[in-house]
Amino acid sequence: MAAFIFDLDGTLIDTTYAHVMAWQQALYEADISVDGWRIHRRIGMSGGLLLHALSDELDREIMPELAKRLQKRHGELFQKSDCGCRPLRGAVQLLKRLRGLAIPFGIATSGSRPGINPSLEALQINDDVVIVEGKKTEHPKPEPDELEECCKRLGVRAQQCFVVGDAIWDLLAASRAGMFSIGLLSGGYPARELFDAGAHRVFCDPAELDQSLYQLGLADNT
Amino acid sequence: MAAFIFDLDGTLIDTTYAHVMAWQQALYEADISVDGWRIHRRIGMSGGLLLHALSDELDREIMPELAKRLQKRHGELFQKSDCGCRPLRGAVQLLKRLRGLAIPFGIATSGSRPGINPSLEALQINDDVVIVEGKKTEHPKPEPDELEECCKRLGVRAQQCFVVGDAIWDLLAASRAGMFSIGLLSGGYPARELFDAGAHRVFCDPAELDQSLYQLGLADNT
Repeated sequence: MAAFIFDLDGTLIDTTYAHVMAWQQALYEADISVDGWRIHRRIGMSGGLLLHALSDELDREIMPELAKRLQKRHGELFQKSDCGCRPLRGAVQLLKRLRGLAIPFGIATSGSRPGINPSLEALQINDDVVIVEGKKTEHPKPEPDELEECCKRLGVRAQQCFVVGDAIWDLLAASRAGMFSIGLLSGGYPARELFDAGAHRVFCDPAELDQSLYQLGLADNT
Repeated sequence: MAAFIFDLDGTLIDTTYAHVMAWQQALYEADISVDGWRIHRRIGMSGGLLLHALSDELDREIMPELAKRLQKRHGELFQKSDCGCRPLRGAVQLLKRLRGLAIPFGIATSGSRPGINPSLEALQINDDVVIVEGKKTEHPKPEPDELEECCKRLGVRAQQCFVVGDAIWDLLAASRAGMFSIGLLSGGYPARELFDAGAHRVFCDPAELDQSLYQLGLADNT
């Protein structure tokens, strides 16, 4: 028996670039100038960790009060952006296929409701799907807590889980949770970094993963 | 004697992510759905080549008439975006330093006026700086024509030129022009790909290049 645990942004839904721009604008409004590529490399972490990492990198302290305000503002700007929360190529079909194969799946995301609601809708994910939200977890990715919680709620063992993510934080968390991990290029991380962070396999996007399930011993594509 | 030839977007100015979103939106309006990461990997090519590459990748023909309309619409959406055309970390200081060292420099970009005017202003680049625009060149990057034109107008030989770019297209063009090439991570391309495309050195951003001029034998930082 197998089960899938998906990251959301950059893995199933094409929001990475809109998140970069929303963070950049929120920081800029607080008079903190950060180049886009530095933010991109931190997307997939929780908002708190992202700001912590950037503050280290910029050698500028971001106090808890400001961090809270920045996270709120990032959320507002992201909601206002035109990204449309479009599913990545093949994402809806992949989830459909898993349902057809009776393979359970859940979502473990650093995001939280209501921010992620448009993404869940676009992916046609109903209330019966297990969703573990970042804000409700004390130790977000790259710690394994979100994945372990998802695994528990799916009713499977860690060794049965395939974790799918686009960021090295997903893969590090999967390693720590003792789960098989799959990297996707659809968040803009290079394949080399995904493999270096422990990905067992790397595919372009959900569509290629869908076509490659047989490589994981999960579907007979012959 | 040395001279520098800079790419503009992603190398001196932080516009890569805004370009990705503007292209994505323009394509979406024409009922062509392309995931952000696929566009990101083509940024730095001319608009025409970018569309050509995407149409190959998507296995969907984009006729010349539509390509023209998409380029126009991308320009409009980019102008409307909130990116503010902010210089990348250290870019203004680097150009100042080169002036101080009496090292000539020029810009060779796939962009064109008036689209690039806000970027040039933000970088405090005056009319006396050589600017080679993509639209005025018959063979854009990764062909070497823009670099060769810039080199000619700077009055130096190819062997004296240091080409600085964030995309593999800059580095491929530099190799073909017989110029020394420097990759920057500030456009979001991974270091490994920049080296693989022929970069002799890779730095984070203009600030790190500024601090590393002595490694190129161009300034005594001791």
